[in-house]
Amino acid sequence: MQDTTHIDVLIEARWVIPVDNHRSVLNNHAIAIHQGKIIDILPIHQAQSKFNPEKAFFLHNHALIPGLVNLHTHAAMILLRGLADDLPLMEWLNQHIWPTETRHVNESFVRDGTHLACAEMLRSGITCFNDMYFFPEASAQAVLDVGMRAAIGMIAIDFPTAYASDADDYLAKGIALRDTLHPNPLLSFCFAPHAPYTVGDKALTDILTYAEQLESPIHIHLHETTDEISIGLKTYGKRPIEHLHQLGMLGPSLIAVHMAHLTDQEIELLKQHGCHIAHCPSSNLKLASGFAPITTLLDNGINVGLGTDSAASNNRLDILEEMRLAALLAKAYSKRADALPAHQALEMATINGARALGIDAITGSLEPGKAADITALDFSDLHLLPCYDPVSHLVYAAGRDQVSHVWVNGKILLENKQLITLDSTALYNRAAYWEECIKSTHNLTDNNQPGKSQ
Amino acid sequence: MQDTTHIDVLIEARWVIPVDNHRSVLNNHAIAIHQGKIIDILPIHQAQSKFNPEKAFFLHNHALIPGLVNLHTHAAMILLRGLADDLPLMEWLNQHIWPTETRHVNESFVRDGTHLACAEMLRSGITCFNDMYFFPEASAQAVLDVGMRAAIGMIAIDFPTAYASDADDYLAKGIALRDTLHPNPLLSFCFAPHAPYTVGDKALTDILTYAEQLESPIHIHLHETTDEISIGLKTYGKRPIEHLHQLGMLGPSLIAVHMAHLTDQEIELLKQHGCHIAHCPSSNLKLASGFAPITTLLDNGINVGLGTDSAASNNRLDILEEMRLAALLAKAYSKRADALPAHQALEMATINGARALGIDAITGSLEPGKAADITALDFSDLHLLPCYDPVSHLVYAAGRDQVSHVWVNGKILLENKQLITLDSTALYNRAAYWEECIKSTHNLTDNNQPGKSQ
Repeated sequence: MQDTTHIDVLIEARWVIPVDNHRSVLNNHAIAIHQGKIIDILPIHQAQSKFNPEKAFFLHNHALIPGLVNLHTHAAMILLRGLADDLPLMEWLNQHIWPTETRHVNESFVRDGTHLACAEMLRSGITCFNDMYFFPEASAQAVLDVGMRAAIGMIAIDFPTAYASDADDYLAKGIALRDTLHPNPLLSFCFAPHAPYTVGDKALTDILTYAEQLESPIHIHLHETTDEISIGLKTYGKRPIEHLHQLGMLGPSLIAVHMAHLTDQEIELLKQHGCHIAHCPSSNLKLASGFAPITTLLDNGINVGLGTDSAASNNRLDILEEMRLAALLAKAYSKRADALPAHQALEMATINGARALGIDAITGSLEPGKAADITALDFSDLHLLPCYDPVSHLVYAAGRDQVSHVWVNGKILLENKQLITLDSTALYNRAAYWEECIKSTHNLTDNNQPGKSQ
Repeated sequence: MQDTTHIDVLIEARWVIPVDNHRSVLNNHAIAIHQGKIIDILPIHQAQSKFNPEKAFFLHNHALIPGLVNLHTHAAMILLRGLADDLPLMEWLNQHIWPTETRHVNESFVRDGTHLACAEMLRSGITCFNDMYFFPEASAQAVLDVGMRAAIGMIAIDFPTAYASDADDYLAKGIALRDTLHPNPLLSFCFAPHAPYTVGDKALTDILTYAEQLESPIHIHLHETTDEISIGLKTYGKRPIEHLHQLGMLGPSLIAVHMAHLTDQEIELLKQHGCHIAHCPSSNLKLASGFAPITTLLDNGINVGLGTDSAASNNRLDILEEMRLAALLAKAYSKRADALPAHQALEMATINGARALGIDAITGSLEPGKAADITALDFSDLHLLPCYDPVSHLVYAAGRDQVSHVWVNGKILLENKQLITLDSTALYNRAAYWEECIKSTHNLTDNNQPGKSQ
């Protein structure tokens, strides 16, 4: 060991799939990590003679991929998972989600919900998520408790909630939170105006000014439904994208979520302005929002990442599932079985999300100099036999049940499927607490199916 | 214990979801099993005083559902999983799947492949599958080795393979196999002509005659792609459904697979004749075949079950995944978020499949008198917290990683996620053997990505 370099961690693996520009698949390689960063990726036999790690992992049946990036969620809404399904969007929102939120959402709800969401996301191989929810100070604290990476939303919406009274109040609180926590190696911040139909022009213009000053992305729901577009046409005589364009909001800071309804001219606008898109296929299907034209967007060189949306409209926080669904849907929707091939889907789930968030110099691929945000999947599972192409398996065959290890910033957060920084019993107890609270006000009996159970 | 009845097995569970006509959800119920059959379903406290079981299971965080029915697969093709993806259908078949099958498929391939497929299906909660593949004697033997339930395809196709020389030879071999094995409590038999474009009218007519004599279903690919319909129009001047109708094949024995392209008149024909449909959403998307109009079919009272298709075009043998995808797709395709609600999706995955196979008196729901074909899912998993409606979770949130126990005909085949009748090491070794054989002829290097790897 005399001539070896001392490092913190060495991970040996059957495959390293870095999601680099060459779409490499590296056999029997190792990743060397020191002080939270990837310092080398090299063949295992070379790594063994070059490095002297404090801790080594021998994952010889595994693939290492960049930690997955969830480009759109409302993490704490996990506490409303499955509360109301199979309903038209406005009935779902007006009669179930919004009344329940009004009654229950507070800092404690957001902290507990975000902890549970972090647990699910880590076990699904996600290392970074882009959040939009009330009480972002509680989300941020939960993320730091766990040690994940997140982009915290400085949320704005025109109507009052327990969190803030009006758009100015939302923005003041969000910016104050950012001022308190910035810079932090695990946190970044996005302005998060809910949508053009819930945030007025004054607030949108203010956000644009702040976003330029702070160099922050702007994370907004856009063109999710045809109803939203009709509202735009009625309210200001334009489709929402055109309206945002006239406000000056189209640009490389914009992360537009959903985009299930787009004209060719709108796609051209998005391309010209370098906008980013968060595609949420499960949510778009479940709420019957529509089919986003992903193949056309990608063919135009527009950056598209993947989001789960909330567990109230999905009902999983599982980017592997979104990756598979995005690849499958794109083929059928474009009528081309060769559309959105596996490696491109993997890019959407990793580097594209990081790029949208402006943190692709830090995460989203496995390359020396970047943070060690890494997910390992166990390919010895029978569900992945035989194996001719590990990237095909990652996208089409693997599920989160194969996720075995997750590191963020070089720190292990999931080891052999066990959460390291979260207490599962506490998560279970807090979820049970909120379940009881919400059931008591949602007129659900213990059998969960009023009138249908014995 | 004096006044109690001795039985083989009692399973206590948090929920029993029998998939009966009332869409019941039974809280804290137990299932009593004797001699392979369900003899009672009753509240746990009553079961404890009524029965004295040889073996009891205490699944107090679990939901029990009918074993899932996979209404269309080619089980042994699991050995080709991920061999070639992201390719147009005819290139995929002509350059990859068919040449590989010609080179490798024999009895040993089918036995090993079916064993591996059974392992994956059991771990995914599937208790019964409808198979269509060469060397069905090897599939049938594998099924009996494992103890699962299956409908074995008496396959027919006009071109010769290692298995048979022409349609007459295929049929003779299939019928001889049925004669040898029938009756068997775990096996049923379907005629399985591949498709109207690969099986001529003489063989189809013969099959119709035999099927009536033997009271067997007929399992056929139909209206999978627009190409198939064009071939029909060119060959006999009709769309394939109309052609089968004129041959007299439309009827309650017909299990038509895919049906991604249907006119209103065709839907009316299917309804009038009581045909059954095997919907394979992953495969239809992955091969860019199209979107089957499932909501319209169901609204017309047509029986629709779910199939995985083979692991070469899916690439999972996972009916929970198909159930979720079917429910989500139906909503977006019909533009109605309330289309195909959770309980209806669960029916598609269970009783509807059994009904199509003509075995709904035996399996497909949990009711006294039926075989004890049961799947348990562990709802204490963090991925299913909180829980307001277990049926919502089964369809939208659960995955096969929550499947903990599976019984077929009262015999436990999966216990605490461990396979009981299959040796995982042997499965792994045989999969590795075939992987090497197939790689050696498919010009794949060890790194699986020729020209792209280091």
